[in-house]
Amino acid sequence: MGHSRPADQAGLRRGNLALLVRTLREHGALSRAQLAVRSGLSKATVSSLVSDLELRGLVHSAGISAGGQGRPGQLVALRPTSVSGVGLDVHVGHVGAAVTDLAGDIVFRRRFVCDVPALGPERTIDHLAELATAALAEVDGLVGPPVGVTVSVPGLVDTSAGTVTLAPRLRWRDVAVADELAARTGLPLDLISVDNDANLGAMAEQAAMNGESGDPVTDLVYLTGDFGIGGGVISGGRLVRGSIGFAGEIGHMGMDPLGPYCSCGRRGCWETRVGLGALLHACADPDDPVRDPTLDLDQRMRMVRARAAQRDQRTLDALHQIGSALGVGVSILVNLLNPAVVVLGGYFAALPEWLVEPIRNQVVAGVLAPGAGGARVVGSRLGFTASTTGGALAALRRVLDDPTVVPLNQPEDEEAPA
Amino acid sequence: MGHSRPADQAGLRRGNLALLVRTLREHGALSRAQLAVRSGLSKATVSSLVSDLELRGLVHSAGISAGGQGRPGQLVALRPTSVSGVGLDVHVGHVGAAVTDLAGDIVFRRRFVCDVPALGPERTIDHLAELATAALAEVDGLVGPPVGVTVSVPGLVDTSAGTVTLAPRLRWRDVAVADELAARTGLPLDLISVDNDANLGAMAEQAAMNGESGDPVTDLVYLTGDFGIGGGVISGGRLVRGSIGFAGEIGHMGMDPLGPYCSCGRRGCWETRVGLGALLHACADPDDPVRDPTLDLDQRMRMVRARAAQRDQRTLDALHQIGSALGVGVSILVNLLNPAVVVLGGYFAALPEWLVEPIRNQVVAGVLAPGAGGARVVGSRLGFTASTTGGALAALRRVLDDPTVVPLNQPEDEEAPA
Repeated sequence: MGHSRPADQAGLRRGNLALLVRTLREHGALSRAQLAVRSGLSKATVSSLVSDLELRGLVHSAGISAGGQGRPGQLVALRPTSVSGVGLDVHVGHVGAAVTDLAGDIVFRRRFVCDVPALGPERTIDHLAELATAALAEVDGLVGPPVGVTVSVPGLVDTSAGTVTLAPRLRWRDVAVADELAARTGLPLDLISVDNDANLGAMAEQAAMNGESGDPVTDLVYLTGDFGIGGGVISGGRLVRGSIGFAGEIGHMGMDPLGPYCSCGRRGCWETRVGLGALLHACADPDDPVRDPTLDLDQRMRMVRARAAQRDQRTLDALHQIGSALGVGVSILVNLLNPAVVVLGGYFAALPEWLVEPIRNQVVAGVLAPGAGGARVVGSRLGFTASTTGGALAALRRVLDDPTVVPLNQPEDEEAPA
Repeated sequence: MGHSRPADQAGLRRGNLALLVRTLREHGALSRAQLAVRSGLSKATVSSLVSDLELRGLVHSAGISAGGQGRPGQLVALRPTSVSGVGLDVHVGHVGAAVTDLAGDIVFRRRFVCDVPALGPERTIDHLAELATAALAEVDGLVGPPVGVTVSVPGLVDTSAGTVTLAPRLRWRDVAVADELAARTGLPLDLISVDNDANLGAMAEQAAMNGESGDPVTDLVYLTGDFGIGGGVISGGRLVRGSIGFAGEIGHMGMDPLGPYCSCGRRGCWETRVGLGALLHACADPDDPVRDPTLDLDQRMRMVRARAAQRDQRTLDALHQIGSALGVGVSILVNLLNPAVVVLGGYFAALPEWLVEPIRNQVVAGVLAPGAGGARVVGSRLGFTASTTGGALAALRRVLDDPTVVPLNQPEDEEAPA
């Protein structure tokens, strides 16, 4: 039984400010009358809320509506450049950064190839801090200050402390990422969050899908597809985090007690069958450039794609083997979670033409619900960028949930009203 | 990004009425002043809301507070007998019914042993309708009319239609349970819901735990423990239902492509390893009374318990085998969902002394998070009654979420105010 708190006036107003921002974010410029219709609020309330958002610099006037029904009215639009959200991420083979404006559009993206397990946490966070500083310098003048910075890490994260508890593939344990990043960048600690890469990827994929036409996707499973495999689960529109935030460790589902050893020290974890290491070993010899860790991963995946397109038998066999092993685990996830869609992220996203069919065959065979309960299996459109994008969107969420985090009388010098 | 609707006055009032009912349900009799403090509402608002609830017959005056700080005040208490909730359930070997009052206390419970797969849906629903009619007749005068009737079924349920899509262990497919039950009982169709047994069991277990002291449990996995194995997952306080309500089919996780055949037609499903059939076969020969389907299951479980307590080796070996196989699947669930607690329901609940340790050993070995992410494994206190209790509580939820489903000027003849 949920324990709801009674709504108070300030909370109601914050919620209604947030509702208008989200409505403008989804529909573009609208008149106050249109906002009243779409939000269900009175015109007087909408006018008062719009004035408030103007004083915070989050919206501005955007010309006169031409049209349709009713009298023409002054249009209100989001000022996408008013604030920004920053996503940073740590992978096994690179660190990355992305900055979005308030509309969620990417205004900056950069990746730095490095061997994170070899560098260790200290030097990796040095690189991350440099990337963050460079990003904020480059977007200065283009977008307003960040409302948040979210760091994506492939592992167990204590989100309340901003600490990585355990990330086997990085060989990190109890790393105070938020503290270390704040110390190096001078960013206020309360702006910095740390989250699991699969959780952030799932949020990004959901946002990307819901930006398309059709019903919003509320039940989604996202697979990261890297050396390790993480899962981000969205159920009923909300992220499944678990009791202490450690949900989604699907890479370590035990599939075979006699299977290969995993980075976590156990045997037969799913990621030993379907992780990037398993693909690279299956499709190429050690001296093959596909297995050269100094090359960018996107480039190596393009090589694998090209060979598969040329019907190279070893590559096709490897992809079929990975796809089937993926399907066994995906069937478990679909039986348990009944998602509308399973999104293949990371390296899987480079190879959907060869992976989706064997997965689909296993899922149809292995799931109790007729037609696999309607679950579709699709390649991500975001690939390896999902977790940085998700981090930036998660950072933005602070202002989308509560526009009052941006102070009143925000200077409006970045952009003149139309 | 969630799409919240703005709160309107009527919705706000419904929400606040519900808040008062839940507060009284948790804390017992309170004065209006105490209700104001606990709810955060003004005293004037509380007085108005209490008058409304009195007119609906849901609360009554309950003497003068002796109390502590402040002036003595007239106490307000829930009238537990004002309305009732009815849970019905269909198992492989029996049908059952339970009725609760508004406080969630059981006022009626009955079980009827029958071979449901052999009877078929029509005759089973005949029995269910007879049970429901008998239950309502027996509680008439003790509690008010039902605000809802929820039927629990072990299988895939289309909750919006009140239809069982597929229940392999019952051999049911596309059975219109709500329609059939309404036709046989004369109950209004809109009072009748159908839901998955594991979902209802999970709700009942959560309610039972949250009635104890300590922090409320918001992340829980419940295993049904019958011939088939279902899972009810509560994450962040909410049931994980999936995109079309088919989540929780953990019994059909594929654990071994060469394993025994399952009722669903596949091989090596988890329930072939840990279901009641697996235990009975492992611990007794066919002519053993433990395997006699005409005996009540509770009685047979007491025999198994007695043998284990006497250290009968075959029984102990069987329980260890089941416990270990349970642990392999529970590890997957804990890696994926990071629950605070895994509740062993159904037949497992009769045998926790022998099952919990082998499960726990597998979980500690198989889960990435240190200390299994804090997950406890416990036997249910509700056993086979969880799904009927959950059904009755789910039925009550209609009035707890919206007290205005009970009309104003409810006659108060069942109980005089104190």
